[in-house]
Amino acid sequence: MVNYEQFFSAAAKRGKRSEIRELLKLTRKPGIISFAGGLPAPDLFPVDEIKEMAKIVMEKEGRIALQYGPTEGDNRLREELTKMLREDGVTLSVDKMLIITSSQQGLDFVAKVFIDPGDVIITGRPTYVGAIQAFNSYGAAMHGIDLDNEGTQTAQLELEIQKLAKSGKKPKFLYEIPDFQNPSGITMSLRRRRELIKIAEKHDLLIVEDSPYRQLRFEGKAEPSIISMAPERTIALYTFSKILLPGFRLGWMVAPLEVIDKAVMAKQAVDLCSPPYTQSILFEFISRGLLQKQIEKIVAAYRHKRDFMLAKLDQYMPKIEGLKWTKPAGGLFLWVTLPAYMDATEMFISAVEKKVAYVVGTAFYPDGSGKNNFRMNFSYSSLEEIDEGIKRLAECIREFEGDKDKGSFVTP
Amino acid sequence: MVNYEQFFSAAAKRGKRSEIRELLKLTRKPGIISFAGGLPAPDLFPVDEIKEMAKIVMEKEGRIALQYGPTEGDNRLREELTKMLREDGVTLSVDKMLIITSSQQGLDFVAKVFIDPGDVIITGRPTYVGAIQAFNSYGAAMHGIDLDNEGTQTAQLELEIQKLAKSGKKPKFLYEIPDFQNPSGITMSLRRRRELIKIAEKHDLLIVEDSPYRQLRFEGKAEPSIISMAPERTIALYTFSKILLPGFRLGWMVAPLEVIDKAVMAKQAVDLCSPPYTQSILFEFISRGLLQKQIEKIVAAYRHKRDFMLAKLDQYMPKIEGLKWTKPAGGLFLWVTLPAYMDATEMFISAVEKKVAYVVGTAFYPDGSGKNNFRMNFSYSSLEEIDEGIKRLAECIREFEGDKDKGSFVTP
Repeated sequence: MVNYEQFFSAAAKRGKRSEIRELLKLTRKPGIISFAGGLPAPDLFPVDEIKEMAKIVMEKEGRIALQYGPTEGDNRLREELTKMLREDGVTLSVDKMLIITSSQQGLDFVAKVFIDPGDVIITGRPTYVGAIQAFNSYGAAMHGIDLDNEGTQTAQLELEIQKLAKSGKKPKFLYEIPDFQNPSGITMSLRRRRELIKIAEKHDLLIVEDSPYRQLRFEGKAEPSIISMAPERTIALYTFSKILLPGFRLGWMVAPLEVIDKAVMAKQAVDLCSPPYTQSILFEFISRGLLQKQIEKIVAAYRHKRDFMLAKLDQYMPKIEGLKWTKPAGGLFLWVTLPAYMDATEMFISAVEKKVAYVVGTAFYPDGSGKNNFRMNFSYSSLEEIDEGIKRLAECIREFEGDKDKGSFVTP
Repeated sequence: MVNYEQFFSAAAKRGKRSEIRELLKLTRKPGIISFAGGLPAPDLFPVDEIKEMAKIVMEKEGRIALQYGPTEGDNRLREELTKMLREDGVTLSVDKMLIITSSQQGLDFVAKVFIDPGDVIITGRPTYVGAIQAFNSYGAAMHGIDLDNEGTQTAQLELEIQKLAKSGKKPKFLYEIPDFQNPSGITMSLRRRRELIKIAEKHDLLIVEDSPYRQLRFEGKAEPSIISMAPERTIALYTFSKILLPGFRLGWMVAPLEVIDKAVMAKQAVDLCSPPYTQSILFEFISRGLLQKQIEKIVAAYRHKRDFMLAKLDQYMPKIEGLKWTKPAGGLFLWVTLPAYMDATEMFISAVEKKVAYVVGTAFYPDGSGKNNFRMNFSYSSLEEIDEGIKRLAECIREFEGDKDKGSFVTP
């Protein structure tokens, strides 16, 4: 018998299987309506168009698409993405862009490039569980800043940075998801964006802007992105997973040249290059204007689903003091807050018994708080499933709340 | 002006752009015959079959293939690969296999899972440059063991491990490429394989067996793989890049469950899952028996190219004492040794001027030695290019050797 434990690195010992992904396994039972995953709606995938583009790529340049490619990514694809970003107020040259194998790889890169064990970084409280995993695997000390309905509370952020400075610490970066934040669905106001950047400039800090949902806005005008306001301090991560499809595992990263240079080196050691084959398919897709059409289609469908879920929440949820949810203007998620005495992880088991699922709030807190929260996804399920699922969930909350006198609750 | 340097991690500071990849840029000039890259021959790519499989996947299961997939990989693909490995003497269940986004990702995972900064690992001397990069980025202390024509010199390995033990150090693993090693083309003898495993058992060590070329054997019988002989001590890495195509960036990893478990956690933080779309295409391709046919085609073509390159080396190379090259029984590379007083890096510039390129030997030595060596790839170039390229290279060596009295040489 080999004792493997003796060989593992500190990173491997720190690693734990994602709670979200372990709980997701429970939700795969037949008949369960799952609001848990962050999955896009598969019926919207442009299957025929992708089939056609794949055919064109093989006929036009099969031998190039199946070969190794440059570490930085397909140059034509980078040009198209540069154009798209320009329309969003980000002026850049292609050499500030790196194609990445999923925006999760982008999170791994910012962690690899900036974090040594013990280094402080600032995240939202809550924040994206995959970011917590990536930063944790490098031994980051994550400090969470609360959000309100304008996003990160910048006054609290300023205080936290001052507190850190007193003990000689300076965060390696501020991690933000300004648009339709995961898990909360909250969008940062312009005022807060300006304050965030002012703080970054005052204390000489970098910002990591994670933008998986920015283009999925259902209404109103987009606030300027952080990278458009402070390009020299911002590393921005984008992905095709939510605006098109996750099955290619492709995204892109925009950053100052010095940072891109380090990320390119990291990429050479990690996968040499992202798949040229699917990059070629995406280039053909985007250069024909199909991505913009696809985004419009997704936005219309998700807007409708969000409206429907909000209506059903209003209709079915019991009137309990402290029970509330966010009303996101875009993205894939909304965020439910239970009364403080209720524990969403405890309730999860009875929810699954009732065949409905969500993600427990604690998954999104680096410090394990968020017990009375959970995340709901509205992009994946059908309208019928949303109706039935919310009904089941409301029943679950009603029963669970009714049990409070029986002592089966944690006190906050 | 932001000073980015202050934010970089130790890993980022350790990172340097691969010398091999920087030199490769020089070789992209028009008219250069390059024996440098490790590229498969693009004219052998099964373009039509991939086009057809991609069509089938979209028609059969487009919505699944374009969605997220399990971290462990497509189960049907893992089953097929398990069957294939069984025919190579490796008995395993699918849960000991993880689909990876290139075998370079596998190298990153073994580094992430096992290496803390300063940890000792053992590699060949020379060894694969991408492995050096991956291990270096985690701060490994690489100890190189010389190869002879039977592969790693196990007597030297035993002495090195004893020496390390005296200073209280134990290697995290032994990194081996037993079949048609990169860069040397050498295959480890059965005797040495047995000794390697005996040493691993005696000192309680793990082995990382990198197997990108194993199936590309031109003649003779394969020696048993290390993982088939010592499955409980071996992590084996495989890739589709050389036996099929690199453009999907897909490979697979086989290891004891405890190690797979850690690699799965690493993968969740790094890219969530490998692309389901191309995994589906590969499943369709392999389940139709097309991979075996493709391997036969590649083996026949590369055997012919190797024979041709060896014949041309015999024909054109000057008769200089100390000038020699390996005669690999498979794979993609052969390894040239110049007389000890000649420097292949210095010669590289005049080679590129003569419009022929190789990879300098120093790239493959963790300790920067190997100055009088270079690596030659025989898979990529056409027969005409091999003929002309070897002619140019021979001229280059002849001139460079003739210059030795003019003092333009390093002494060894």
